[in-house]
Amino acid sequence: MGGGRTRRMPRAERERQMLDAAVEIIARHGYTAASMDEIAELAGVSKPLVYLYLNSKDDLFTACIRREAAALTEAVRAAVRPNLPADRQLWDGVQAFFTYTAEHPDGWTVLHLQARTHGPRFAAEADAMRAEMTAFVTRLIATAALESPHSRDLSTREIEGLAAALIGAVESLADWTNTTPTATAAQASATLMNFAWSGLGNLMSGNRWAPPGAASAARP
Amino acid sequence: MGGGRTRRMPRAERERQMLDAAVEIIARHGYTAASMDEIAELAGVSKPLVYLYLNSKDDLFTACIRREAAALTEAVRAAVRPNLPADRQLWDGVQAFFTYTAEHPDGWTVLHLQARTHGPRFAAEADAMRAEMTAFVTRLIATAALESPHSRDLSTREIEGLAAALIGAVESLADWTNTTPTATAAQASATLMNFAWSGLGNLMSGNRWAPPGAASAARP
Repeated sequence: MGGGRTRRMPRAERERQMLDAAVEIIARHGYTAASMDEIAELAGVSKPLVYLYLNSKDDLFTACIRREAAALTEAVRAAVRPNLPADRQLWDGVQAFFTYTAEHPDGWTVLHLQARTHGPRFAAEADAMRAEMTAFVTRLIATAALESPHSRDLSTREIEGLAAALIGAVESLADWTNTTPTATAAQASATLMNFAWSGLGNLMSGNRWAPPGAASAARP
Repeated sequence: MGGGRTRRMPRAERERQMLDAAVEIIARHGYTAASMDEIAELAGVSKPLVYLYLNSKDDLFTACIRREAAALTEAVRAAVRPNLPADRQLWDGVQAFFTYTAEHPDGWTVLHLQARTHGPRFAAEADAMRAEMTAFVTRLIATAALESPHSRDLSTREIEGLAAALIGAVESLADWTNTTPTATAAQASATLMNFAWSGLGNLMSGNRWAPPGAASAARP
């Protein structure tokens, strides 16, 4: 990249390069070990310019988390059409989720792991996104339950637990896809639906799992 | 605690107190922000004694992760009897898991979040435990699949994906139980089995979820 072209680059574009570099370095080394020198070098700018644009390492991290959360949330939102059946909405949503996280593995690492473990300020940013995803899934499960005569007795607490389980399954499958060389977003989506929605479908049909010899114990 | 009694305490007992304090402080503030002064104070010892026993903050963190991983693994192992049916083994295992993590929420935070985000040395300790749990669940799903005429065609890849989804659901439910005041380990266990084993049961019966208008797309 020539010096002349570098100087003419608009601020938004320059900032995007800094965030790209920061996400990559933070995902690779962890936030604490990530060095502003390395981030500046990867972005092709001077370290003082990073501080001029983003103010501090903490502010840079916050900007990374916000950008990645907004992009992932927007990818899912754009894929889901609220007028379709609940399982179709979930299918479209998880496909978009796994496609996005597979294409942005460093962004996913920053959001899922780094943001949650370096103090409440950063955790709050990631929690907001996770809460939005959980609310989306909770609403889908509640909608499906209302439509089934066998599952109207699912308690709010139980639906919240099921949503927490589903979100955890999605997060773990995103990690699995990103660390298993031949796994794909399409496979992760199919596995999630086979695992989760079939289980929920059983539940909606009134078929609860029960431990042997204690037929009611699996009912919270 | 009297000074005389303090001096007579055996080394193992003193070390246990230091690890207890470190787990609590690391879970509360995160590893980076956790202060050795605060850990020593909570343990009721001098900071030099912590360094004498555990050598460094990194070694103290490693000792915490190892202890918590070993205790959780042992709790699950003690509950599972390998001669019982696969779903019963999973039920016993998840009950033990949720009971342990609900009784040791700080240990769970250290294992699930802190250990995975402060560099490869600590992540390797937590990954070893997660790999053992995943292998256990993979074996149970493979066993159940072999016993079902409808699911002999489940690929190894698909079984690995299902195990990753199930482990993620367990982890998320452990977090949910620890952050939802009235949720219990028993409820988390029942929700997991209703969600996961019922879904797996559907799959074992040859009932895959399929997206509307694309009957084969949910098959990886």
